[in-house]
Amino acid sequence: MTEWTGRTTSWVRPPIAIVTALAAQMRSEGADLIDLGQAILGLPPPRAAMDGVRAFLDEPGPHPYSPDPGLPELRDAIAQMLRSHKHIAHATDGGVMVTCGANQAFANALLTVTQPGDEIITFDPGYFDHGYTIRMAGCTEVPVPLAIEGNRYAFDLDAVVAAMTNKTRAVVLVSPGNPTGAVAPRAFVEQLCDVCRTRGVWLLSDETYDFLTFDPAVHTSPAAVADDDRIVVIGTFSKIFGMAGWRIGYFHGSARLMEEAFKVQDALVVCAPVASQRAVLSALSEMDAYLLETRAELRARRDALLDSLDGWSAARPTIPAGATFLLARLTDNVDDVAFCQRILRDTGVVTVPGSAFGKQGRGTVRLSFGNQPVERIREAGARLQGR
Amino acid sequence: MTEWTGRTTSWVRPPIAIVTALAAQMRSEGADLIDLGQAILGLPPPRAAMDGVRAFLDEPGPHPYSPDPGLPELRDAIAQMLRSHKHIAHATDGGVMVTCGANQAFANALLTVTQPGDEIITFDPGYFDHGYTIRMAGCTEVPVPLAIEGNRYAFDLDAVVAAMTNKTRAVVLVSPGNPTGAVAPRAFVEQLCDVCRTRGVWLLSDETYDFLTFDPAVHTSPAAVADDDRIVVIGTFSKIFGMAGWRIGYFHGSARLMEEAFKVQDALVVCAPVASQRAVLSALSEMDAYLLETRAELRARRDALLDSLDGWSAARPTIPAGATFLLARLTDNVDDVAFCQRILRDTGVVTVPGSAFGKQGRGTVRLSFGNQPVERIREAGARLQGR
Repeated sequence: MTEWTGRTTSWVRPPIAIVTALAAQMRSEGADLIDLGQAILGLPPPRAAMDGVRAFLDEPGPHPYSPDPGLPELRDAIAQMLRSHKHIAHATDGGVMVTCGANQAFANALLTVTQPGDEIITFDPGYFDHGYTIRMAGCTEVPVPLAIEGNRYAFDLDAVVAAMTNKTRAVVLVSPGNPTGAVAPRAFVEQLCDVCRTRGVWLLSDETYDFLTFDPAVHTSPAAVADDDRIVVIGTFSKIFGMAGWRIGYFHGSARLMEEAFKVQDALVVCAPVASQRAVLSALSEMDAYLLETRAELRARRDALLDSLDGWSAARPTIPAGATFLLARLTDNVDDVAFCQRILRDTGVVTVPGSAFGKQGRGTVRLSFGNQPVERIREAGARLQGR
Repeated sequence: MTEWTGRTTSWVRPPIAIVTALAAQMRSEGADLIDLGQAILGLPPPRAAMDGVRAFLDEPGPHPYSPDPGLPELRDAIAQMLRSHKHIAHATDGGVMVTCGANQAFANALLTVTQPGDEIITFDPGYFDHGYTIRMAGCTEVPVPLAIEGNRYAFDLDAVVAAMTNKTRAVVLVSPGNPTGAVAPRAFVEQLCDVCRTRGVWLLSDETYDFLTFDPAVHTSPAAVADDDRIVVIGTFSKIFGMAGWRIGYFHGSARLMEEAFKVQDALVVCAPVASQRAVLSALSEMDAYLLETRAELRARRDALLDSLDGWSAARPTIPAGATFLLARLTDNVDDVAFCQRILRDTGVVTVPGSAFGKQGRGTVRLSFGNQPVERIREAGARLQGR
């Protein structure tokens, strides 16, 4: 290979691999690690999901593609859920595109509404994969810092407005946020919708952790406060149903968006996997009961982590209003990658360096509580505090 | 919506929807249609595939992502298959990226090796989704006409060389070809590899229909004749295993390619669906027996179609050496979209207008034989000939 020809060399891979490699090495040497790294929900999916797949397997005949936008019954069920659970009154099955997870939904929506050269506003610290996708589309990411109010991260409308130029094509809102767990309050969402509508800017709302909020926080979808053609709702069943491995997400938008996005969908994946679509269709019938249990367990895990980190001298946890992790701010001026390596080596607790999530993530560390039972989380806290 | 902002408006959707809509209307009115439209294999997947999924469903615990490049066992099994069945001696598990179908494999590989502004050579008539993806990546498609030799389509090396400029970044070879079923002979593949290596051009080889060839035709992968860093092999289990709905494909390339493509993979889909990966892993154990039966059945279907179209005055079938369809060339100078509509209305046979596949497809019609049993194919031929 003489010279590399592609667009990806400038995409710096987040410094997670360094920690992951060390963890793998320690594990192979028999270390008892506690993984607070991966942001997954470590609970089995709803039983109905698996039953739905079993029923599908028992049906005779060939296994063709579904229609590109998804199985009609699933699009309908998702539209119903958008109306009943996310309060998006204008949601319709025709506005739903079923995708291979939220990342593919974001990629499809972004590629559909942008031209190369557009500027895309994101929040920092934020979800690094969106930065990749923005570059992939030939666009420029314009990260806007989150504010810090007391021990919580918060969205800052003035910063968004200040970052807007005549090249701004979209604002990407991730709420609850990754890695902060910050949940955009309804008033902020309303103001952001106003700003975007006034400026003719798309609002791509990634709602991956929508139902994983901690009372009194409530997730508000932009589409629930404004019926605007340029609002796109992106969701997934990876986190709320513990079904990351099944790769089913979706996005919802206008009829015109669907018409254009169809082309991108066909080129990228044709359709989402059919067995996975059937799994989600069945799971939606058990949604309320499953979420009730999941949220209670998740809250217990969050509280256990916050409780066990109380008084930690190395870092001060911020309080997440949603999602499955929290960001802790290092008290000393140390490199967060080195810090994560050190605590992994010293205590066996796997974390993610905050600089993986942008400039504003430097000097922080992300601890995930979604993937470990309460007792392991307590032990992680104890280990980190040297108890 | 005041004005549309995105990149897709100039992507003309192939005129398939016109025929599909008419077919749906006729079906709703009770018409007995014979669908020679969709290019799928209308046979159930290997039994082992479904058993693999059942075993997966019975395993306890959460359902997280697989590693981005795929389950290690599946990557290993695919690498073995590349060595044993596709004669790619240098294939390794580390060179395999498992994807959500061949389209996502192509999108990933193309996005990884190109920059916006690059020129990509394709063959015409050819697979329209690749054209979409090339535009999505900000590149320019340079279609090169296939030659016609007697009653077969053929690849023309001189035309490829003539189309190359200093902006050419890749040649996309689809063999067996869609919609022609043309299979690139070994000598052509060797020469194409030489040309690409000499010019420093990537060779993206889409081998979707690799094992679906008709004796004496044999598929030759470029990676089987040259161990070159700029050859990327793209494959899928959608067609050879009748598993389109499961969405599992792959691509194989150099370690450097994998390193860069990892970023695109994470941003696009994170990983392929795990249950689908397990299905394919199990299916690979039955590959030889399944393919033996499938190829025999497919050949019978092809021969039935060719036989039943013998003497058709409206169009002259070309003979496919592989894949699941053939292209027939209209004898009169009529519009192929209008032709497909007319035969659908008059005979109830669903076909695809050749202009969907590029300029060189004009005045042709694609008839798929993979999705109908022999007796229905014979009936389709009889209807088309007005018998």
